[in-house]
Amino acid sequence: MSKIKELGEFGLIHRLTSKLKFQASNSILGIGDDCAVYPVKSGSKEVISTDALVEGIHFNLSTTTPEELGRKALSVSLSDIAAMGGAPKRVLVTLGISKKISVPFLDKLYAGFNTICKRFNVELAGGDTVSSPNSFFINVAIIGEANRVFTRRGAKPGDLIFVTGTLGDSSLGLKFLSKKTKRSKDHNFLVGRHLDPTPRVQEAHILARSRINITSMIDISDGLAQDLHHICKASSVGARIQESQLPQSPEFSRTCNRNKINPLPFLLNGGEDYELLFTLPSDGVKNLKRQFLKAKALVTQIGEITLKPKKVSLEKSDGRNIFLPESEGFNHF
Amino acid sequence: MSKIKELGEFGLIHRLTSKLKFQASNSILGIGDDCAVYPVKSGSKEVISTDALVEGIHFNLSTTTPEELGRKALSVSLSDIAAMGGAPKRVLVTLGISKKISVPFLDKLYAGFNTICKRFNVELAGGDTVSSPNSFFINVAIIGEANRVFTRRGAKPGDLIFVTGTLGDSSLGLKFLSKKTKRSKDHNFLVGRHLDPTPRVQEAHILARSRINITSMIDISDGLAQDLHHICKASSVGARIQESQLPQSPEFSRTCNRNKINPLPFLLNGGEDYELLFTLPSDGVKNLKRQFLKAKALVTQIGEITLKPKKVSLEKSDGRNIFLPESEGFNHF
Repeated sequence: MSKIKELGEFGLIHRLTSKLKFQASNSILGIGDDCAVYPVKSGSKEVISTDALVEGIHFNLSTTTPEELGRKALSVSLSDIAAMGGAPKRVLVTLGISKKISVPFLDKLYAGFNTICKRFNVELAGGDTVSSPNSFFINVAIIGEANRVFTRRGAKPGDLIFVTGTLGDSSLGLKFLSKKTKRSKDHNFLVGRHLDPTPRVQEAHILARSRINITSMIDISDGLAQDLHHICKASSVGARIQESQLPQSPEFSRTCNRNKINPLPFLLNGGEDYELLFTLPSDGVKNLKRQFLKAKALVTQIGEITLKPKKVSLEKSDGRNIFLPESEGFNHF
Repeated sequence: MSKIKELGEFGLIHRLTSKLKFQASNSILGIGDDCAVYPVKSGSKEVISTDALVEGIHFNLSTTTPEELGRKALSVSLSDIAAMGGAPKRVLVTLGISKKISVPFLDKLYAGFNTICKRFNVELAGGDTVSSPNSFFINVAIIGEANRVFTRRGAKPGDLIFVTGTLGDSSLGLKFLSKKTKRSKDHNFLVGRHLDPTPRVQEAHILARSRINITSMIDISDGLAQDLHHICKASSVGARIQESQLPQSPEFSRTCNRNKINPLPFLLNGGEDYELLFTLPSDGVKNLKRQFLKAKALVTQIGEITLKPKKVSLEKSDGRNIFLPESEGFNHF
């Protein structure tokens, strides 16, 4: 009999959802992408998603402030909407409150919610507060709107692969999160990228309103290699990326250099970057770069889509090529 | 410094939401009713809600089957949509999976989801599976549609108060849930009403498509007395109900008689009935009764709305009148 640990997160989701005998009619895109998509009014689509953060699994109350936690809980949900090219509109928040949680803690958590709602013009529409015997948890359900929806399917051989922002900051920050030693400015930046990621709502908006033919998109939550595999699997293509092209923040580079840390595992598999990973034909590149430059937003070409189905390869800085294996997802079971 | 226990559930929600500085513009009805309501296409409104069930608080894995749990988790959310006069459309389900949860358990849980989705034409649109260190939990976010929206505000003095189905079954069933003795047929019925409540989606549909002027509505989750207080508070009115009119199932009456149980606390404060409680002017009663009779659905007049703000009184079977106090909500903290 298969165990949850053996199935892994993706295997479990596949098993459970494939047994759903009843599927209503009007879904444009169901389970298996960042969001589900439904038609609403003419030309506009509803994009919806839900995400939970659980104490002891996704966060530790000794290493995050309640404000940071409130901001991150909403930001990771906003990132799911951004990954579809949507604009986030409203959220429903469930709090599972354990005994050690105080009213001032919840006040600060809500201050964090409020910051993100205000910054991205999102409404906290309602929610539920329940008691939880041991671990505090937050569930966020989010509703967004999109005119053009970008999914994981549609990448074609020859398309170029782009990523917003920089990679690896969050997972390198996690390494320094629980260290008791005094943190440098660089460490604080990296820790901040982990505890308080920026959902790429603005970048998604640039892509959505442009005429650029975005053929696939995802947000990087499981790590670049894994999420690129998701695109390749859904699009039945392969991908080749260049180590030398992977965008690094100055803080990330300096910290790796000073501490003799190999940056590659963080860049490829770190996860929780919440950057957008997307593909487009080469004739759209000029327009893309112009629009991101205008908005002072970072975007980097990191490779191209290939014919080989589901194979993701990395051209290393020394010229060697290696295949990047697919994981079963972050196995928190 | 106030503690969560002292604030109570309703006090806590009020405190947290009143601090939200940012409220986006397009909500028709925000926090404080069963659902939040948004305009979508012309004439149609989106009604949304979220609910969590936590092991050890809302259910016990030794007294419910996974199928029942799956059905109940969706049913209580469908009931929120019904309470607004809406039709449920799609749900997002988050599972917080603890170590003792097996794959066959989840298969059966999903079979329960599937039953409710099929019965009420609702789509399981997506979700999230996360690990939870100790307690299993389920969060359901639900999206429905409504043409007419029934809220808690709008009851007027002289309006008559109606309730669907029967009261007290669920809370009396809870009493027999953990008893080791062999259950009678009546006990099984009552336990079933607790573990597997029927959301009144059909009844809400009758009301919504009728021309009856429903002035307020709520679903009974906290108990008749408490939920009637919610209507009175939101509508700035009072209410008087008759003990003799409170609808009881034959199974409930027989069990109370045989076991010398006073039925009144179960009828008034039991909670988790998931029946609809609503008000209308007397000129709509004939139409209401005709429509419910046609649909073979139970509806009972239990009292009327009065002038006295926020006062709910009960006319007992012996002729005495008593005021029913308002509680602070089910205090699970």
